[in-house]
Amino acid sequence: MTGAEIIARCRILAGFSETPGAITRTFLCPAMRDVHHALRSWMEEAGMTVSLDGAGNLRGVYAASTPNAARLLIGSHVDTVPNAGAYDGVLGVVWGIAVVGALAGRRLPFAIEVIAFSEEEGVRFGVPFIGSRFVNGTLGPELLARTDIDGVSVAEALRHFGVQPGPCDVAQYLAYLECHIEQGPVLDALGLPLGVVTAIVGQTRAEVRFLGAANHAGTTPMRMRRDALAAAGRWIACVERFARATPGAVATVGSIHACPGAGNVIAGEAVATLDLRHADDEARHALTATLRLAAEAIATSRDLTLEWNTRMDQAAVACDPALTEMLAHSVESTGHQVYRLASGAGHDAMITATMMPVAMLFVRSPGGISHHPDESVRASDVEAALAAGLAFLGELEGRYA
Amino acid sequence: MTGAEIIARCRILAGFSETPGAITRTFLCPAMRDVHHALRSWMEEAGMTVSLDGAGNLRGVYAASTPNAARLLIGSHVDTVPNAGAYDGVLGVVWGIAVVGALAGRRLPFAIEVIAFSEEEGVRFGVPFIGSRFVNGTLGPELLARTDIDGVSVAEALRHFGVQPGPCDVAQYLAYLECHIEQGPVLDALGLPLGVVTAIVGQTRAEVRFLGAANHAGTTPMRMRRDALAAAGRWIACVERFARATPGAVATVGSIHACPGAGNVIAGEAVATLDLRHADDEARHALTATLRLAAEAIATSRDLTLEWNTRMDQAAVACDPALTEMLAHSVESTGHQVYRLASGAGHDAMITATMMPVAMLFVRSPGGISHHPDESVRASDVEAALAAGLAFLGELEGRYA
Repeated sequence: MTGAEIIARCRILAGFSETPGAITRTFLCPAMRDVHHALRSWMEEAGMTVSLDGAGNLRGVYAASTPNAARLLIGSHVDTVPNAGAYDGVLGVVWGIAVVGALAGRRLPFAIEVIAFSEEEGVRFGVPFIGSRFVNGTLGPELLARTDIDGVSVAEALRHFGVQPGPCDVAQYLAYLECHIEQGPVLDALGLPLGVVTAIVGQTRAEVRFLGAANHAGTTPMRMRRDALAAAGRWIACVERFARATPGAVATVGSIHACPGAGNVIAGEAVATLDLRHADDEARHALTATLRLAAEAIATSRDLTLEWNTRMDQAAVACDPALTEMLAHSVESTGHQVYRLASGAGHDAMITATMMPVAMLFVRSPGGISHHPDESVRASDVEAALAAGLAFLGELEGRYA
Repeated sequence: MTGAEIIARCRILAGFSETPGAITRTFLCPAMRDVHHALRSWMEEAGMTVSLDGAGNLRGVYAASTPNAARLLIGSHVDTVPNAGAYDGVLGVVWGIAVVGALAGRRLPFAIEVIAFSEEEGVRFGVPFIGSRFVNGTLGPELLARTDIDGVSVAEALRHFGVQPGPCDVAQYLAYLECHIEQGPVLDALGLPLGVVTAIVGQTRAEVRFLGAANHAGTTPMRMRRDALAAAGRWIACVERFARATPGAVATVGSIHACPGAGNVIAGEAVATLDLRHADDEARHALTATLRLAAEAIATSRDLTLEWNTRMDQAAVACDPALTEMLAHSVESTGHQVYRLASGAGHDAMITATMMPVAMLFVRSPGGISHHPDESVRASDVEAALAAGLAFLGELEGRYA
């Protein structure tokens, strides 16, 4: 297949949506049947045996040259955020089928399973990775009982879709490979079609609350204020400065709320969010501690109280070094520059990494645009990814020789 | 009267409210009739002739020793903010009546008019100073046609209350004297009962909008961001720092809004308010210009667009220097330290200053608390204010001797 043909398939799937005129496809929505129907036919066309598993993941298995051989798992997700683009997740599945299809029936010493995870975005149930959690055995009773906005549980949604929840078939997996759009501007800025992912960053999320005293904006002299928003402003500036000074870190204050929030009243309370990510957990914890110390110093110097509520402390997930080097070599062998980068967003590879070595290939996102209808990929970049995927199969085959 | 008796009268008026259990008294609400009834009896008891003017101001005139003498105008307002305290405005009116009452019928070479302005806070019609604007002739047709939340105009509200709008009686005023609670923490921090107001500060209000680009908090490196909230945070820190470095200035960012406002999305837009006050208009304009330059530099360095919308540019109003010195001397002669300060809040004196020389006396606000049910005054401070008021009458009488 050409890059343009892979893109055309992604656009076909983009036509299956919950909302007319936009791409929105949450966990097991009716449009997912159409997606599965299309994927099933493409998988079968590539020589795969297709089944739907207990979490609504569609799985196509391409047999090895020998029975009972271990499997290479290739996958990504086919759900989307609301008003999404056509490539986030979907490209990795269509690409996986194209990689298998390019073998044109040739058998390898390992089987290949292409998996279309049913859920990764966390939109419908507020918890992400339902599809891959099923595979690694962490889709427990609590998660199955979780309900959506209409009171429908995960288990009920599965039954409505015609899936009976149950344990996952255990296969002997040798590795997991995921191809995904970068969803960021780095490769585009560098003019590179592909990136090799070294790790998926760890995340800290916190709610940071400055408590001072609301007061009259006209009659309270500067030196007698306990201005919570002035403190928060200064801290937001610190977050940007310290994150800029920490290689590999990103830190974001995306939300702030001042109370009472009137122009002529000094804010007595200001609540800001912190989202801090780094591929190295130690560096992330160190920067978090620094920002917390800064917040405390800023609060203390203004006679404020600080409340720091950690909402998430998720460890980074390293891609497998040996497998990643194999992927880098594959990229290189097809004539493209190898650029290694951490993924700032979460991916199904984070979950499958608990079961097997993982490697991830990034495809350039023009303009860094993602989670938006303008999300795009270039045909030549997708073609480069396809060539790298095939080269990777060759590398893996060489290991078995 | 003692200070405690003046406070007791303020507490009686606080019982007349639109809302049970709280003090809320907007322009010509039914409770205002009870206020007028009480004030009228106290004014008459002090020897004044009482009338209601065309803007619902209650006016008591205490005749001079000779006919056709000029009048000293003493006043403040009797409306309140929602859920107010008992002293903002009201104290100045009750104090004025007490000052006249203390003359015990003795006549001066000038008349005294005590005025209870019907409206100063701007709550009901969104425009303040309706009472004093009538007196200085700026309660025009546009303002009279302005409607409240129920669609009732100022003119209709006056008619409903039994007042016929019309031109103001013109008297020959020699000066305006207003006694008001400070509404700020300065006198309390200094341990002083009284303050002599030198000026009412000028005000700049602006809406400051930083426009960048919303983006993924995980996948967008720090150096590739156009983070509107990071810029706003840095600017808020500047506002505080520069205002602290400018003697006499207060500057406040009391409200901020980030869009889209999600913790894991870089803000593409941030809108902050600025409230900047100074008794010297030149200093205020200079600081405003500095803060605007800072905002532009902060925006430019992050590839953002800045929109600066000035919402108010109100000039400072100086108290009359000679009259203010007379008031300072009155305070001193009663054994209290003279502390001169600017008023950070607006007062009716701003409006009457267009017609005559004005002077203002501040009474300490314990804890700086105002516009709140906990607003208070000390009996001994009110007694000091009463003594200063009587001394002021003596000074003025001396001028006529």
